[in-house]
Amino acid sequence: MISQKHLEYGIHSSVIREVFEYGVQRKAEIGKDNVFDFSLGNPSIPAPKKVNETIKKLLNDSDPTELHGYSLGPGDEGVRKAIASYLNEKYSVNESYKRIYMTCGAAASLSISLNALLNEDDEVIVLTPYFPEYRVFVEHTGAKVVEVQCDENTMQPDVSRIESAINEKTKAIIINSPNNPTGAIYSSMVLAEIAGVVSDKEIQYSHPIYVLSDEPYRELAYEVSVPYIAKYFKNAIICYSFSKALSIPGERIGYICVCERCEDGDIVFKAICGAGRAMGYVCAPVLFQKMLPELLGITSNIEDYDKNRREIKRILDECGFKYIDPQGAFYIFIKSPSGSALDFCEEAKKCEILLVRGNEFGAPSYARAAYCVSYKMIKDSENAWKKLAEQYGMKGKDND
Amino acid sequence: MISQKHLEYGIHSSVIREVFEYGVQRKAEIGKDNVFDFSLGNPSIPAPKKVNETIKKLLNDSDPTELHGYSLGPGDEGVRKAIASYLNEKYSVNESYKRIYMTCGAAASLSISLNALLNEDDEVIVLTPYFPEYRVFVEHTGAKVVEVQCDENTMQPDVSRIESAINEKTKAIIINSPNNPTGAIYSSMVLAEIAGVVSDKEIQYSHPIYVLSDEPYRELAYEVSVPYIAKYFKNAIICYSFSKALSIPGERIGYICVCERCEDGDIVFKAICGAGRAMGYVCAPVLFQKMLPELLGITSNIEDYDKNRREIKRILDECGFKYIDPQGAFYIFIKSPSGSALDFCEEAKKCEILLVRGNEFGAPSYARAAYCVSYKMIKDSENAWKKLAEQYGMKGKDND
Repeated sequence: MISQKHLEYGIHSSVIREVFEYGVQRKAEIGKDNVFDFSLGNPSIPAPKKVNETIKKLLNDSDPTELHGYSLGPGDEGVRKAIASYLNEKYSVNESYKRIYMTCGAAASLSISLNALLNEDDEVIVLTPYFPEYRVFVEHTGAKVVEVQCDENTMQPDVSRIESAINEKTKAIIINSPNNPTGAIYSSMVLAEIAGVVSDKEIQYSHPIYVLSDEPYRELAYEVSVPYIAKYFKNAIICYSFSKALSIPGERIGYICVCERCEDGDIVFKAICGAGRAMGYVCAPVLFQKMLPELLGITSNIEDYDKNRREIKRILDECGFKYIDPQGAFYIFIKSPSGSALDFCEEAKKCEILLVRGNEFGAPSYARAAYCVSYKMIKDSENAWKKLAEQYGMKGKDND
Repeated sequence: MISQKHLEYGIHSSVIREVFEYGVQRKAEIGKDNVFDFSLGNPSIPAPKKVNETIKKLLNDSDPTELHGYSLGPGDEGVRKAIASYLNEKYSVNESYKRIYMTCGAAASLSISLNALLNEDDEVIVLTPYFPEYRVFVEHTGAKVVEVQCDENTMQPDVSRIESAINEKTKAIIINSPNNPTGAIYSSMVLAEIAGVVSDKEIQYSHPIYVLSDEPYRELAYEVSVPYIAKYFKNAIICYSFSKALSIPGERIGYICVCERCEDGDIVFKAICGAGRAMGYVCAPVLFQKMLPELLGITSNIEDYDKNRREIKRILDECGFKYIDPQGAFYIFIKSPSGSALDFCEEAKKCEILLVRGNEFGAPSYARAAYCVSYKMIKDSENAWKKLAEQYGMKGKDND
């Protein structure tokens, strides 16, 4: 018998991926302009020019043995210093480069942090709707996921539900804001309230409750700003990725920052080093590490996503669909008119619109549309959305 | 309590790294030309020019959104096809690209494969002397390492000891040839004998025993050739890395190949996909994946390592040191004249020669010298070696 747990994760691969693969096939059948594929969170706007320029500069100007050689396990010291300085200046904090660990992106950041913190039977709170891979990362360690439903109307965390869910086994809470799949940005007020509850519970149970902040979308915010989690939570661990900010999701580069006020922070950092080592992460790809000092604070052209966001909202409004008003990331979470995500996604598919059902996100009456697509595709999808609305007997915004 | 196991791996980081760090400090004190640092297996010869050329070509000629976008979890299909074709042509085998999974190097290849295969209480046989990280990778899964000593004179595997060590709990054997730390290349004859034993035991215990072939040094062979493991073992899983062949260890690129005759090979491959996913490996860095089709069969200038090998052997012979005759990789395993590696490394350090003690490799009377250094450093180290020999009252080769 091989590992049944890992076999299961391999066989039932992500539902997002399944829809995406259907889309590839369907586009081959009826032409790619006739399928409106909102399935995948793959950035549609190119990396800033400076990404390729910086890589070329490194290739031209560096000694190749040094350039492509190992870095220390936690990463190149110069790179970590640059990241710490950037964070400190931007957020007026005092993070140490000695507590920054370079990773192969946000998934690695989370998975390594969870392995560092968790023992079997520990519990990790996730705020529903949540990115389904959290369950996979947590269960790999032998710990358990505890789902806590957000407010159904705003998709902001529900503080009293979080309070009820915390018990002596609670080791960590994963926070993801801007959120995948809802596009919500958790407000300062709600974060401050959660922080108060967490702090009380830490005293009650005499152990730290770590807050893992999954931040691939930190820079993707529209109209509102994104609170810096470590300002609110003492035991914050940032799990960052450059994938979306720089439109380089395939290159796998990010970091973990064990924040300055974190209890036993140096010890936690050592355990992160140990977990990364045991999981076969020798170091993050060095070429992508070394380009970062030139790219901190630079992003792809986020305005393009905002333009897409406004257009998809306009179309959904025209049709009379209800959705969570997206403030960040590049997802819009749409309520199924029938109350069933499965039904909604099937009907959408008939109109050649590909959505991901909310079930695996813990929201079985919603479907996720990723609007990190071309503006043209959104425009072109308008009639398909109208057709879909008609299937549900909807008459557009005036009648809604 | 955070994970004590991972904390332990973080606190007691690799002994190799410790010696290396001492070296950095010592060089700052007395000048880098005065320290003879044989601690680290960091390639000293540059990547072939074609590495940087291919990367630049990709940067210049590709659409950036596509170039830096996600690949499928197991990797880019074109890349996997190119690797399968290369293996099939070179070794006259019939590997399928559908069973090739791109990874962040050999450590990831091994760690993911072990997580896919192992359940708690399973046993994994390693052949002593062995790379100490194997223990860390295996123990992360909850399984146990069983050490089986190689022949003390040749450092070839001892078939009868392997036979005695296999029991119903044995799930896998790790084979590493060319070997770190001994430089031995396991002979066809010995491999065929082990394969016979493994096959008998698989029948006896009614389950497959997987052979994980850790192959970062496959191309680094002098005078003798390296047998292709899947020719000998039915249940072979290759854990390959391009780190040493292309002198790009920091970039983290390699693959797993679940070989054609592997029992339940498709199922094992699915479990590998699931393990990679659960460990946060979304995909291997795509830029380094995509350069590979242009680079298969190309290596750094291996002759330079061979020149180093001959020179260090000459010096050790002159001094009268005993060592395992290295056939591959870039390590030479030197017998301590006193029988104690600790003592030998301490005495060497006094002569400014930095070696890694064999204890963690399971060989407490040997020390490892990595000769992937500059030829000049080896030449310059001759007097230091002579001084070290004198400490042990050795009079050189004529008197030995």
